[in-house]
Amino acid sequence: MANTSNNLDSFFSPCSIAIIGASEALNSFGTRYLQSLLTFGYKGRLYAVNYKGEQVLGFKIYPTVLDIPDSIDLAIICVSARFVPAILQDCLKKGIRSVTILSAGFSELGEEGRLLEEELLTIARQGIHIMGPNCFGVYCPSGKITIIPGDSFPRETGGVALIAQSGQFSEHIVIRSIGEGIRFSKVISYGNACNINESDLLEYLAKDEETKVITAYIEGVKDGRRFFDIIRRSSGKKPIILWKVGLTRLGSAAAISHTGSLAGERTVWDAFFRQSHAIKVEHLEELIDTSVGFSCLPTGCGPRVALISGGGGGTVVGADACERAGLPMPPFPPEVEEKLRSILPAAGTSIKNPIDIGTPHPPLAILTAVLEAAASSDQIDVIMIRRIFLSVTVSKLLSGSAAPSEEEQQQLMEIPVEIKEKYGKPVVIVLTEELNSVDAMELEEGRRKLRDYYFANGIPVYLSEQRAFTALAHLTKFRTRIGMQHHTDANDTRITAPEKTAETARSRIRHRATTTVLNEIQCKEILQEEGINVIETTLAASKEEAVAISNKLGYPVAMKIISPHITHKTDAGGVKLGIKTSHQAGKAYDLIMATIEKNNPEAAIQGMSVQKMAAPGVEIVIGMTKDPQFGPMLMFGLGGIPNSVRCSCSVSAVFSWRLFRTSLLG
Amino acid sequence: MANTSNNLDSFFSPCSIAIIGASEALNSFGTRYLQSLLTFGYKGRLYAVNYKGEQVLGFKIYPTVLDIPDSIDLAIICVSARFVPAILQDCLKKGIRSVTILSAGFSELGEEGRLLEEELLTIARQGIHIMGPNCFGVYCPSGKITIIPGDSFPRETGGVALIAQSGQFSEHIVIRSIGEGIRFSKVISYGNACNINESDLLEYLAKDEETKVITAYIEGVKDGRRFFDIIRRSSGKKPIILWKVGLTRLGSAAAISHTGSLAGERTVWDAFFRQSHAIKVEHLEELIDTSVGFSCLPTGCGPRVALISGGGGGTVVGADACERAGLPMPPFPPEVEEKLRSILPAAGTSIKNPIDIGTPHPPLAILTAVLEAAASSDQIDVIMIRRIFLSVTVSKLLSGSAAPSEEEQQQLMEIPVEIKEKYGKPVVIVLTEELNSVDAMELEEGRRKLRDYYFANGIPVYLSEQRAFTALAHLTKFRTRIGMQHHTDANDTRITAPEKTAETARSRIRHRATTTVLNEIQCKEILQEEGINVIETTLAASKEEAVAISNKLGYPVAMKIISPHITHKTDAGGVKLGIKTSHQAGKAYDLIMATIEKNNPEAAIQGMSVQKMAAPGVEIVIGMTKDPQFGPMLMFGLGGIPNSVRCSCSVSAVFSWRLFRTSLLG
Repeated sequence: MANTSNNLDSFFSPCSIAIIGASEALNSFGTRYLQSLLTFGYKGRLYAVNYKGEQVLGFKIYPTVLDIPDSIDLAIICVSARFVPAILQDCLKKGIRSVTILSAGFSELGEEGRLLEEELLTIARQGIHIMGPNCFGVYCPSGKITIIPGDSFPRETGGVALIAQSGQFSEHIVIRSIGEGIRFSKVISYGNACNINESDLLEYLAKDEETKVITAYIEGVKDGRRFFDIIRRSSGKKPIILWKVGLTRLGSAAAISHTGSLAGERTVWDAFFRQSHAIKVEHLEELIDTSVGFSCLPTGCGPRVALISGGGGGTVVGADACERAGLPMPPFPPEVEEKLRSILPAAGTSIKNPIDIGTPHPPLAILTAVLEAAASSDQIDVIMIRRIFLSVTVSKLLSGSAAPSEEEQQQLMEIPVEIKEKYGKPVVIVLTEELNSVDAMELEEGRRKLRDYYFANGIPVYLSEQRAFTALAHLTKFRTRIGMQHHTDANDTRITAPEKTAETARSRIRHRATTTVLNEIQCKEILQEEGINVIETTLAASKEEAVAISNKLGYPVAMKIISPHITHKTDAGGVKLGIKTSHQAGKAYDLIMATIEKNNPEAAIQGMSVQKMAAPGVEIVIGMTKDPQFGPMLMFGLGGIPNSVRCSCSVSAVFSWRLFRTSLLG
Repeated sequence: MANTSNNLDSFFSPCSIAIIGASEALNSFGTRYLQSLLTFGYKGRLYAVNYKGEQVLGFKIYPTVLDIPDSIDLAIICVSARFVPAILQDCLKKGIRSVTILSAGFSELGEEGRLLEEELLTIARQGIHIMGPNCFGVYCPSGKITIIPGDSFPRETGGVALIAQSGQFSEHIVIRSIGEGIRFSKVISYGNACNINESDLLEYLAKDEETKVITAYIEGVKDGRRFFDIIRRSSGKKPIILWKVGLTRLGSAAAISHTGSLAGERTVWDAFFRQSHAIKVEHLEELIDTSVGFSCLPTGCGPRVALISGGGGGTVVGADACERAGLPMPPFPPEVEEKLRSILPAAGTSIKNPIDIGTPHPPLAILTAVLEAAASSDQIDVIMIRRIFLSVTVSKLLSGSAAPSEEEQQQLMEIPVEIKEKYGKPVVIVLTEELNSVDAMELEEGRRKLRDYYFANGIPVYLSEQRAFTALAHLTKFRTRIGMQHHTDANDTRITAPEKTAETARSRIRHRATTTVLNEIQCKEILQEEGINVIETTLAASKEEAVAISNKLGYPVAMKIISPHITHKTDAGGVKLGIKTSHQAGKAYDLIMATIEKNNPEAAIQGMSVQKMAAPGVEIVIGMTKDPQFGPMLMFGLGGIPNSVRCSCSVSAVFSWRLFRTSLLG
């Protein structure tokens, strides 16, 4: 974590920049960055720094930053990794507070790189904020600064911010979003995040007035707990759209090679999303679709959908997509159905919700009347229209002589905007892709123009029903959260443990431990000491002892093998329940020992635990773990389930994990 | 089902067509169909039929088909629904064997329409095959015939067939597929399927030599059993790609309004896909992506992927997509990693699988060497390359001065084809969409040209990693099926029931039944009669009787309430287990009765079942149902699971349904 008491403004709106590594060679990384800033129109003072050379692109080259006769707000380092520590020392001497390191070759390469990255941190602690290393920098139109491959990015500013651990995706998400109409406040490629990390950036963006919607591409997080708290606090005010990658085994390995990130456990991240209310997206398209939605409808919208389709197949596919996204598509009240019946012919249409208007080329009067009927219903929050409007602009190509006149086309195109304004209800349009051959570019151009027209008028446009409903579901969920108070303190569940005695079981056991796995007896000792009722359990060292203990406890009893090498006792044949007599007790002991001897000959045996059978009841399971990214996690669920069931269910179905605010185990 | 002993050739390659409903009004449905066939270039003899009018588009109008002085292979009916039966009678008299009814207004409208549709069937049984009603007809380039909105469809034939219950999707899937390079053998919009149904069509296409890949948009099926058998027989020879819609509650309701189809149960369809080996796709894009895959790689491909990415983020996203699709991405052998290490710089790249080549604009020599290294490994079946080649054609737009020369661009573009041929391994390319604003049409044109070039060279191209891996998974699964024998008869599980006695328990119970729900005692009687062991169970009418029966059976016993109104006995508090003494038996009886009286005061009580406690063991559950579309279904799974677990799991996790070939219950 960076010390962000001084904020990060210099990274976004620096008055002067030194580009260290800009050289006389035009294709060097530093020179290309300098060129990028010039092309983009950076207005502050620029300085090139290199140990050799005279000038580049009309700029004098200074040997070090110390030679620059001016104060520097931001240094950008583009030299080989091994030279970076020395250069950072120069920056420190020069009094530069903000440094972006584009160079790769640090912790993502393993131990040697990790040590080099630690050197950077040691220097930074003396008064520098570092962005990177292994990143592309910052794009901020209001500061007239851009990332290295971003010289052609839009100059106008917008309400969407993006943080991306991947340089490639910081570029790619911007490129893909531009065409959709999205404009950015700030885009940060932050790479290995050795100093300024995702939490620092989110905290900054949550307060940033330019930023209305936050999006993020995340491989791993440095301080999961802080990340969680910041998002939890902010996600009821600004939508925070997270694309968390690397949650598969293969993806996680790739994330380590890429940015040295620990991608984390899927179950932990599932709990994170449930509790933080961050908006979880699964791929690039969903991230962009959701950003488009929030750009058009900043506060989201209500959930009840009326779908109007230009064809019957679309009603079925649309209804499927609606239900899968978890949104209601309520039936129309009788008076609305009556109105629709008077508008549409009986055959080849449907007046139920979803409405089938019968053709993707409806006449103006019919389309208008149908939309009015649906929008006027107080059962409906949002109108979705599919596969109609593309036909409008390009209908000559698709429907030949049946195409409407230019004037009618214009009027058809304007109806959704009129309906939206007249009824004050959001409209969403599905503009499915049609012919996409090389000789049909006119069609695609028509689609894009129409998309831009609707976007400018506050109507989001999507390529398929599925994508539209997925984005819509994110919008509606966010709306229910706006204004919701997060009583995080009230939710904080603490358990007061009893006073500790001088030497606790815990410290005694820890002291003598020869393994990291505690056995049943040890676990019960610790639990008992913490004030939790446990069944009296005694360790027997021999068959005779086991029988004697059983007799003393009273039947029925249970016996369980105790071995540091056998954690799944039942699976190993190491458990006998419901032992009713001393004869049975002796037999149970022998049987367990024989089975273990046969199946686990290598296991060291500490003895046999003997305990009274517990009374029947609801069995529960409680688990804890310390996640490396998020800290204490609590699991609670149904216990005593046959193992075969637990395995065939997804884990979260039987019990669920929650992030927990305080660690019970200290 | 149609009597298809005569095949369906006349629908695809008719020598003469009568269009009934073509009129002097140019925008009438019939006239538009006539115009469609003329534009498309139909070469046979065409006749217009209408009760009035003289001529249309240069054709004489005949009042009825009976007036045409020629034999007619195919009649196409485009008149209002109510006139269709009379016209069909004319067709029958004229000896026309094949009729396509485009008119809507039949079973999709409810009871009245259903009766009208039945009239058609009655006439058809005298010697006509009907396609439709409520459909768009047939597109078959080799027969020079097309669907009503298909006058601009490609004239060349191809290997993909499509059957679609939705007219709109029969058109839309073709339009969307054309640009991707797919060409069709036959496309059939079959609407309400009153006579020729999906099974008839699949059976025909499975034998059709023109057809290599079968695709289908299905709302519901008429005869699920036959449909299942045909697909099971054929899906090891030709890929059968099914888009089954309407499996949600909303979607199912929409399917009834659309084509009067019963969409069916999700669990049943899940079993269908598992057992039939049809390829299940979830949306339009997946259907097209999979068709593209099979068009390029007709016999599928092996599963082990090497991914080459032009950037690190893409390796993570690609690895996630690979694992989610269930495909292996094995590590490279040391010698391959060694080779890669000598090619790529250490920083900003990765030599592990997935390979990060470091930039989307790699130099020719590096890209070639990397692909050679990966393709030469015997651990790899298929090479996937992401976000590199678009940069090739349009790199000037994206990378400015760093763009390669025209000649180098051409060479870069050709590498994948060379690698594919040199190593005989399939190559798949991910060409992510980039800037898609209105002023970037050149980029999209570049993408399409590149896509077409690769398609022509047997390399499928996809818009995202996710889409590429999903399609690839379908290809690899099909490959493992090719040549697999379906021992359907050997799989046929029959149980021989013991000989029936004169009056069976079943007939006796059925005779006296006052409810459709059998109680526990009745169930056990029937099972016992069929030769299945059951626990002796006796019905007690009073507390005294219950205690006496318990004493006689011997403890421990179980008691369960018997009422036609209480099927979930445990939930209702109607079960007591492990009763150990006659005192406990009396108390258990009272407690059950009191609980039922309190919670279910309306329930009629038939008595209390008393039985010995069963010995512990693995509890299983067996269920049967008769699905309206697929017939007998057998369910088998783990029983004795706490209800709360079963509810929180998806049903299929605890037990699974299978289609069953013979009904046990006759």
